[in-house]
Amino acid sequence: MATIAKGRGIVTLINVFTVGRDKQQKLVDVLIDATEHTMKSLPGFISASIHKSFDGTKVVNYAQWQRREDFEAMTRSPEARPHMQAAAALAQFDPILCDVVDSIGLDG
Amino acid sequence: MATIAKGRGIVTLINVFTVGRDKQQKLVDVLIDATEHTMKSLPGFISASIHKSFDGTKVVNYAQWQRREDFEAMTRSPEARPHMQAAAALAQFDPILCDVVDSIGLDG
Repeated sequence: MATIAKGRGIVTLINVFTVGRDKQQKLVDVLIDATEHTMKSLPGFISASIHKSFDGTKVVNYAQWQRREDFEAMTRSPEARPHMQAAAALAQFDPILCDVVDSIGLDG
Repeated sequence: MATIAKGRGIVTLINVFTVGRDKQQKLVDVLIDATEHTMKSLPGFISASIHKSFDGTKVVNYAQWQRREDFEAMTRSPEARPHMQAAAALAQFDPILCDVVDSIGLDG
């Protein structure tokens, strides 16, 4: 589970992967495995939510880290590297590092 | 506020806008105004969370709707059209309609 709200002072990484339809599920498996076995134990990890597009051509990882430095340390960590290489072998990706400006919802 | 969790049976729309740095804040204002004044009153709306990229070139709307039909009805609604036209005048966008496969987090 993850919560989106403004003013939390955290960093959001929205990573959009473009993938062949025959590799979408494989990429989902790689990202879940990476999160369960590596990312969630790294300093500053808050959440990772993996999404599959209905058209079969995209996977989106909506991830939250405490600080930008935590995310950057993850990208350099030897434990994360094999997972990132496995994802890069399956898809192109376009990571967006961003901040929640507003969250308007009926959840809360 | 918004909550991401698997198995909610809802539809997620991740809309990535690519924008000139001088128009990023204007686009944020257009999307917040659209949500507050129109989207949140439409049937099936759950949430919209607006994100600004640190590099100034992207805005991401992470939105949740009860059913795919609710989202599609919104895109055809006369109330929504002027807001969508205002956003389209400022940026290119690439909407991804998707499902949460997994959400792994320390929030819950």
